[in-house]
Amino acid sequence: MITHEQRAQILSEALPYIQKFYGKTVVVKYGGAAMISEIMQTSVLRDCILLTLCGINVVLVHGGGPEINEMMKKMGKESRFIDGLRYTDEETVDIVQMSLAGKVNKDLVAKINIEGGHAIGLCGIDAGLLMCKKLTGKNDYGFVGKITSVNCKILNDAISSGYLPVVATVACGEDGHSYNINADSAAAKIASSLGAEKLLLLTDIRGVLRNKNDENTLIPRIKLSDIDRLTSEGIIQGGMIPKLECCRTAVAEGVGSAVILDGRTEHSILIELFSDGGYGTLVFDDKGRPEYA
Amino acid sequence: MITHEQRAQILSEALPYIQKFYGKTVVVKYGGAAMISEIMQTSVLRDCILLTLCGINVVLVHGGGPEINEMMKKMGKESRFIDGLRYTDEETVDIVQMSLAGKVNKDLVAKINIEGGHAIGLCGIDAGLLMCKKLTGKNDYGFVGKITSVNCKILNDAISSGYLPVVATVACGEDGHSYNINADSAAAKIASSLGAEKLLLLTDIRGVLRNKNDENTLIPRIKLSDIDRLTSEGIIQGGMIPKLECCRTAVAEGVGSAVILDGRTEHSILIELFSDGGYGTLVFDDKGRPEYA
Amino acid sequence: MITHEQRAQILSEALPYIQKFYGKTVVVKYGGAAMISEIMQTSVLRDCILLTLCGINVVLVHGGGPEINEMMKKMGKESRFIDGLRYTDEETVDIVQMSLAGKVNKDLVAKINIEGGHAIGLCGIDAGLLMCKKLTGKNDYGFVGKITSVNCKILNDAISSGYLPVVATVACGEDGHSYNINADSAAAKIASSLGAEKLLLLTDIRGVLRNKNDENTLIPRIKLSDIDRLTSEGIIQGGMIPKLECCRTAVAEGVGSAVILDGRTEHSILIELFSDGGYGTLVFDDKGRPEYA
Amino acid sequence: MITHEQRAQILSEALPYIQKFYGKTVVVKYGGAAMISEIMQTSVLRDCILLTLCGINVVLVHGGGPEINEMMKKMGKESRFIDGLRYTDEETVDIVQMSLAGKVNKDLVAKINIEGGHAIGLCGIDAGLLMCKKLTGKNDYGFVGKITSVNCKILNDAISSGYLPVVATVACGEDGHSYNINADSAAAKIASSLGAEKLLLLTDIRGVLRNKNDENTLIPRIKLSDIDRLTSEGIIQGGMIPKLECCRTAVAEGVGSAVILDGRTEHSILIELFSDGGYGTLVFDDKGRPEYA
Amino acid sequence: MITHEQRAQILSEALPYIQKFYGKTVVVKYGGAAMISEIMQTSVLRDCILLTLCGINVVLVHGGGPEINEMMKKMGKESRFIDGLRYTDEETVDIVQMSLAGKVNKDLVAKINIEGGHAIGLCGIDAGLLMCKKLTGKNDYGFVGKITSVNCKILNDAISSGYLPVVATVACGEDGHSYNINADSAAAKIASSLGAEKLLLLTDIRGVLRNKNDENTLIPRIKLSDIDRLTSEGIIQGGMIPKLECCRTAVAEGVGSAVILDGRTEHSILIELFSDGGYGTLVFDDKGRPEYA
Amino acid sequence: MITHEQRAQILSEALPYIQKFYGKTVVVKYGGAAMISEIMQTSVLRDCILLTLCGINVVLVHGGGPEINEMMKKMGKESRFIDGLRYTDEETVDIVQMSLAGKVNKDLVAKINIEGGHAIGLCGIDAGLLMCKKLTGKNDYGFVGKITSVNCKILNDAISSGYLPVVATVACGEDGHSYNINADSAAAKIASSLGAEKLLLLTDIRGVLRNKNDENTLIPRIKLSDIDRLTSEGIIQGGMIPKLECCRTAVAEGVGSAVILDGRTEHSILIELFSDGGYGTLVFDDKGRPEYA
Repeated sequence: MITHEQRAQILSEALPYIQKFYGKTVVVKYGGAAMISEIMQTSVLRDCILLTLCGINVVLVHGGGPEINEMMKKMGKESRFIDGLRYTDEETVDIVQMSLAGKVNKDLVAKINIEGGHAIGLCGIDAGLLMCKKLTGKNDYGFVGKITSVNCKILNDAISSGYLPVVATVACGEDGHSYNINADSAAAKIASSLGAEKLLLLTDIRGVLRNKNDENTLIPRIKLSDIDRLTSEGIIQGGMIPKLECCRTAVAEGVGSAVILDGRTEHSILIELFSDGGYGTLVFDDKGRPEYA
Repeated sequence: MITHEQRAQILSEALPYIQKFYGKTVVVKYGGAAMISEIMQTSVLRDCILLTLCGINVVLVHGGGPEINEMMKKMGKESRFIDGLRYTDEETVDIVQMSLAGKVNKDLVAKINIEGGHAIGLCGIDAGLLMCKKLTGKNDYGFVGKITSVNCKILNDAISSGYLPVVATVACGEDGHSYNINADSAAAKIASSLGAEKLLLLTDIRGVLRNKNDENTLIPRIKLSDIDRLTSEGIIQGGMIPKLECCRTAVAEGVGSAVILDGRTEHSILIELFSDGGYGTLVFDDKGRPEYA
Repeated sequence: MITHEQRAQILSEALPYIQKFYGKTVVVKYGGAAMISEIMQTSVLRDCILLTLCGINVVLVHGGGPEINEMMKKMGKESRFIDGLRYTDEETVDIVQMSLAGKVNKDLVAKINIEGGHAIGLCGIDAGLLMCKKLTGKNDYGFVGKITSVNCKILNDAISSGYLPVVATVACGEDGHSYNINADSAAAKIASSLGAEKLLLLTDIRGVLRNKNDENTLIPRIKLSDIDRLTSEGIIQGGMIPKLECCRTAVAEGVGSAVILDGRTEHSILIELFSDGGYGTLVFDDKGRPEYA
Repeated sequence: MITHEQRAQILSEALPYIQKFYGKTVVVKYGGAAMISEIMQTSVLRDCILLTLCGINVVLVHGGGPEINEMMKKMGKESRFIDGLRYTDEETVDIVQMSLAGKVNKDLVAKINIEGGHAIGLCGIDAGLLMCKKLTGKNDYGFVGKITSVNCKILNDAISSGYLPVVATVACGEDGHSYNINADSAAAKIASSLGAEKLLLLTDIRGVLRNKNDENTLIPRIKLSDIDRLTSEGIIQGGMIPKLECCRTAVAEGVGSAVILDGRTEHSILIELFSDGGYGTLVFDDKGRPEYA
Repeated sequence: MITHEQRAQILSEALPYIQKFYGKTVVVKYGGAAMISEIMQTSVLRDCILLTLCGINVVLVHGGGPEINEMMKKMGKESRFIDGLRYTDEETVDIVQMSLAGKVNKDLVAKINIEGGHAIGLCGIDAGLLMCKKLTGKNDYGFVGKITSVNCKILNDAISSGYLPVVATVACGEDGHSYNINADSAAAKIASSLGAEKLLLLTDIRGVLRNKNDENTLIPRIKLSDIDRLTSEGIIQGGMIPKLECCRTAVAEGVGSAVILDGRTEHSILIELFSDGGYGTLVFDDKGRPEYA
Repeated sequence: MITHEQRAQILSEALPYIQKFYGKTVVVKYGGAAMISEIMQTSVLRDCILLTLCGINVVLVHGGGPEINEMMKKMGKESRFIDGLRYTDEETVDIVQMSLAGKVNKDLVAKINIEGGHAIGLCGIDAGLLMCKKLTGKNDYGFVGKITSVNCKILNDAISSGYLPVVATVACGEDGHSYNINADSAAAKIASSLGAEKLLLLTDIRGVLRNKNDENTLIPRIKLSDIDRLTSEGIIQGGMIPKLECCRTAVAEGVGSAVILDGRTEHSILIELFSDGGYGTLVFDDKGRPEYA
């Protein structure tokens, strides 16, 4: 049983961390378990509201694979993946846009506002936030896009008017068509465009693990210059490879640091930002940020 | 063949009308034919952009019945209407929200931006723009809402930051649930909350007709005090009754005037605003607005 | 041992309380044990900094009896009290001003700034913040003043420029002379002038006790209309009488509520503001504030 | 007969041109036939008002030779020209100042305001807008000046307060005396100081003509680098030489482009700005402005 | 011989007077001897600049009878007066406008700027500052106007941008024509519209004299309620009657006080404002302004 | 006897000097006789208020040796000086802080406010205005500091909110302790940080004298490049050496010029600033400021 005195003590101990992030920007990529469980969703959204009240600018970027899959199924349409990417034909991109920008996005906004926050829901189409071109690769992926520019004005306008922007990762192609965008990349690009202090990628794993079956082997900090070695050693592998790539891009383009963070633990955002050790795997540039070196 | 000189002359003749609306707000309820045809859509959206460049604040409010119907069909769900209202169960309100806020809304935003405008797409959930309670009546209509409050701050913030707000008429209930809202009523409520100068209701008819089969019998101006008589005479009938009710509410609550406007004619918005005679049926308060009396 | 997860949970639970006070003003009367002990001082000042980071405007008002007494002694001058008030001759008021505005005030400012805050030290003389006239009573008390007007402009200027104002309770008389002012009254007057949400009077007691020897008999909430009865019953007695009088004045003049708060408990400010039950004795107006009724 | 529908269509077609100039500045040198005929005057002034309503900043710079001549005659004073410049003795410069700053300028302001604009009339003396020194040449021209500096603050202040500034080209010499200034040069200097997008020189000719007797030989576009050649070929000749020199100066100093424009055609300003082909002779820098190259 | 020490002493003694007028507005009606003599002009204009540097807003309103007369003569046109008013035919109003708005106004502006001030010259036509209708009376006076409205926006814009506005008293009639306006009335109307603290009417006399041939009989202060009696006693007579009427109007409409001030004495403005006794005849409302009562 | 006309003439002659300093900053180091005599104090403070009303930003920096000595004596503590510096033990620095920040500072603020000014009293501790480290030298001087950084934000905030900041020269060490700071150096550092136009060091002597016993041998102007020579010649000697060093530092770091000014003459500040010859010894950089060369 924790007493009122202990509670106050704990609040008080958050002071230096709040001071550290005060007036800065944190971009949260939100997805996976943290988005599906009602409890986890409340936890994440309330953490974001709390940060904004503590003078920290939060931008919430989300995907929504499960919702898209469900909608595909309901419409009798098969989800098809090529090279790990959802093949996105005309009808699929409509479903993606509807699910992300119409359902997931607005439901998140509604929940934040019910909890007393002031959120608005945007997607990459609004005010030209995310412009993209068709992603090219070994195969044709349909309407899957690669971001060519981020126009942060709308995010800065929203923040300075007191809103918490929630961003669905659908972008506008140069052809005017909607495109599906990987949410991790979008979050990384938005973070670097905003000059964010932190990029938090919420995932369904504890972080980068030395032994992927043992959470006790978490690697708490990775320098940019170590990513290649860790990848060649097979420690960074599978789905972690593109995630680390997003972190690398963001940090290389000026974001203070990026974190692979466990979205299955309640309030992992607060633990990460408001404790010395952090919680997930921190990716940083040992040149640019001596405090991490 | 119209010469350059004639074109310039015509532009010049728009001057007094632009002066009349400069710095004022026009709420456009957009729907029906004007939304379905590609040509008409371009016409309406470009008109709206033109108005904003001429110093007129435009808010575009839209529904999207056909898109909802199509999505219902795709998902193998039957559309059901009670007392002329779509019966909206849990699954239906999801489809409504996705179609309106995710598809129609963002597609309109994309088109405006491609035409060089600066639009953002919102729905009633964003920043608590439209709060509602469950609509009660002779029957249960499910998640169909009646607006209880409009919080215009987000619209004013958007306008003053230089954006054209496009609003999907989904609202947030007191229970936190999403509700389907009639777009005409939403436009009327938004217009009165903003203190708009004009409410334009785009429809698939020429206006209020004395003989509903003859467009030459258009009634160009209706006073608030004449609505009841015209209704009892059967001239205002069917779908026109709720539309006139929206106009009456808006004007009674301070909107300069409201217009039932033909959405099937290209640039009917410009004709309505930028000519002496107008184009549709103008509803006004003979007491409050001597210039129409 | 409290885990990181528990700590984050506790932070998260502060959300509704922060939301409640966000953008509002809290005036803290600081004195007694909370000011003498180094540990308690750090506790109070860090709590105040934390509040400012959470978007709450804090004004710290302090006295400094012990420091004055010590200085009197060092200068070989006897402290003399009449009717419980320090008799304040010309030399004494100089000592009071020096001790409060020169020593206690600036030392507090230094400590806040060392802890990462942004404080400036003011007294009632600065920018005409506190104007007073000579206090009259049964006896002559010398340069003891009674506030006649509060000019909050300097406090609002300081707050809007991002400073935490620390106020020493020396005021300027109509004769241009400095006067000694009771710190509780000054805090109450400042709170009502600022339209504060809360006045916190830090004292060396748990609050108003039904049995003054038993802290378990704390009266947690007192209505304005009950003060007289409690006084006549002898429950409010001695030094509590003027304190309750300050609370009554503040609340009657528009402050949300006032609290007699234990300054001997670490972080009692956070406990009071960030828990449902509060910690000290809350004085409120049952008419004006239904949430307390 | 042009229908309402055609009119609206034409208005709508102006959209891309308005978008192109939105938020930019156009300096109009106004003189000649466009100023003498009542109809033409109304046409020009209404065009300018229309531009300001479309978000384009307009500065109107005018001379007034005919009015000066008439006033000279009324006062029994002979107009005398040396090297094409009005010899301006003490009395003449008084007449010039009175005619331009007192009569022509204020009459233009009055007309703009009657048409619903918001104009203020200034001359180069006001707020040190145009400073000059005595023009030196083969002969003595009296109080004829050459601009040494332009202080645009008053123009920017006027524009940002919502006024259309109308400028009479009288300047203040370093000796404090008033000087007569060539209006084309003044307009060019003002345009480059403001970083204008366009300088329009209204004249009594169709533009630069290959055969000066045949308007069908209009040269629609001239690069800076072609001016010398066209002059040596005798195509640019007579009064056109200084006009092209003004255009060259303005464009070389950063104005987007300059146009020799027919002031005898109604709404030539609108035709020039709001059609692809333009109307007069456009002078541009093929290096700086690829869109004209 | 006055020493540096004495000079500094005198400057210092101006302090309370500057404090009294700091941030307030003084309207100076400038005319007569003060305008004709070079020395007096410099004195008045430098006084006005000094006031603006001391934080006092100055608006200079001027007529220019002698310049008009001279111009009339030069143009071989006879000045004709009816009921003490210049009969103003079409040609005369042109001469009035040119002389006042083109010559006198801009020459004053030039002089102020040469002395280091920041003046702009306006007339009643600019931005609709002075609107009028034809003055009607026993006879027809031609284009002589009576002010119907003052639009102070342009004056406030100019002042807040740091300019000293100089106003020529030509106004725009409802018919769009220019009208000649009495400068005293214009100054009074402008003063009341601006809510000025002082209206100073510079004249060629010491003030209101009990014996018009003896300057020692100056009446230093006149209450509004005494004007009628002094008029009926013949003390206020001739040209003083309309001047006192202007003072009465201004004070009755909210101006702090009005002063008939000698324009023949150097720096009479500074003496009036910066000494206890003042210099001219002060007109005040004994009801509204207890400090004069 | 000086007439009103002469007084006004003298005020008028201040115009060019006020224009010269308008909008600029003057830092006044206040001490010595000018602070002890009641008459001189009133003179200096009123001069400062007058400057602020004339649009000049004034910062008043003060020491207070006599008050410290007196307080030391009252507390039975001996003043001890090493190398001309007060040896400052723990108890002494408390007395210094109390005397300067608590007594002298607030008394000055009170007097300025009584005279109609708007002063606030600050010391180097407030908002981190003056940070210092322990001064090291041949001997240990205790808590005597050397400024390491000046944070002018609080001064700029105060000035832009309309206050005259009065600064006591106590600073905060890197160890969080209070330190005694030489007031001349503090004024010089503040002046250079603010980019002041003038630094005025009020002293008890006429300025730098060629013969220290003869005030008629005042050296009115000293170039930076002459300081060393004048020192080696023994003309700059004793207490003048550190004062000239402060002037040199300030001017070398960008202050327009510095003046050693007689604080025993009433209004010497006004004489210095508002006359051609100045009054004290001006120290300037012949390279940077041609107007003094």
